[in-house]
Amino acid sequence: MYAVHVSDDSDILQRYLEAAIPQVVSMQADVTAASEERVTLSAPLAPNINHQSTAFGGSVASLATLACWGWLWNHLRAPGDKTVHAQLVVARAEIDYLKPIASTITATCAAPDAATLKSFWDMYARRGRGRIVLDAVVEDADGVACARFSGRFVAIRED
Amino acid sequence: MYAVHVSDDSDILQRYLEAAIPQVVSMQADVTAASEERVTLSAPLAPNINHQSTAFGGSVASLATLACWGWLWNHLRAPGDKTVHAQLVVARAEIDYLKPIASTITATCAAPDAATLKSFWDMYARRGRGRIVLDAVVEDADGVACARFSGRFVAIRED
Repeated sequence: MYAVHVSDDSDILQRYLEAAIPQVVSMQADVTAASEERVTLSAPLAPNINHQSTAFGGSVASLATLACWGWLWNHLRAPGDKTVHAQLVVARAEIDYLKPIASTITATCAAPDAATLKSFWDMYARRGRGRIVLDAVVEDADGVACARFSGRFVAIRED
Repeated sequence: MYAVHVSDDSDILQRYLEAAIPQVVSMQADVTAASEERVTLSAPLAPNINHQSTAFGGSVASLATLACWGWLWNHLRAPGDKTVHAQLVVARAEIDYLKPIASTITATCAAPDAATLKSFWDMYARRGRGRIVLDAVVEDADGVACARFSGRFVAIRED
């Protein structure tokens, strides 16, 4: 008997991010959930600490960016594929830092509403280029919302 | 004869950031200028690359955050001191990604205008807590503006 490795969406996204973005490795960012409903990344405090012994704002924003980018990547990826056939870029981002984080950092992007998704897909189908605003919340280990992120992402079909 | 090490403001800021924020080290961020007029940080592409072989948006935002944070830190630091007697935190940030960066990344925060500075210092003197909006531009190696960052920073006097 030997263990069967079940490759779920979070494994696929984790491998892609680690191979493509060295900062994912240096932040020790870990994709803990990846589904149509949400993508969550967590990172320990130590490699992301700042001068106040709380999370560095840049790391908090990076983790939120990756959660949203990862949600869109996962959303566009066809089942069974290891990547997507589109370029996905962040065009604009804003973040409110509500409270310092003195623990593991967790960023979650939840699926946008149906109207937002439909508008994205209409544009993507028609022009091969879709825009979408995705939000993420960043929480500490107690589940307290410590930052709110909103990013505008662009997907450009490769074909 | 031996070399005399002249410790300028960029050395002092570099040492402070490297000791306090591990991501400064992993991004290989280098303070190339620090004065009352401006603070500039540069980072090579390799540790900050993304899936498109251009700069990771999170690194671009981090470098811009550090340039602004660093400018305020340097502005508040008394001559001869190695640190400041205030907590400096980022409260809000927004960034527009204008063009991909396929080279060394350079973020510069220039001093805000006199009215912005006066308003900050009035509040800081009166309440021990000042707010200031600082802008940074992020350029590629050809000096092309590739991202524009604006952050709201808060300084809380320690005394």
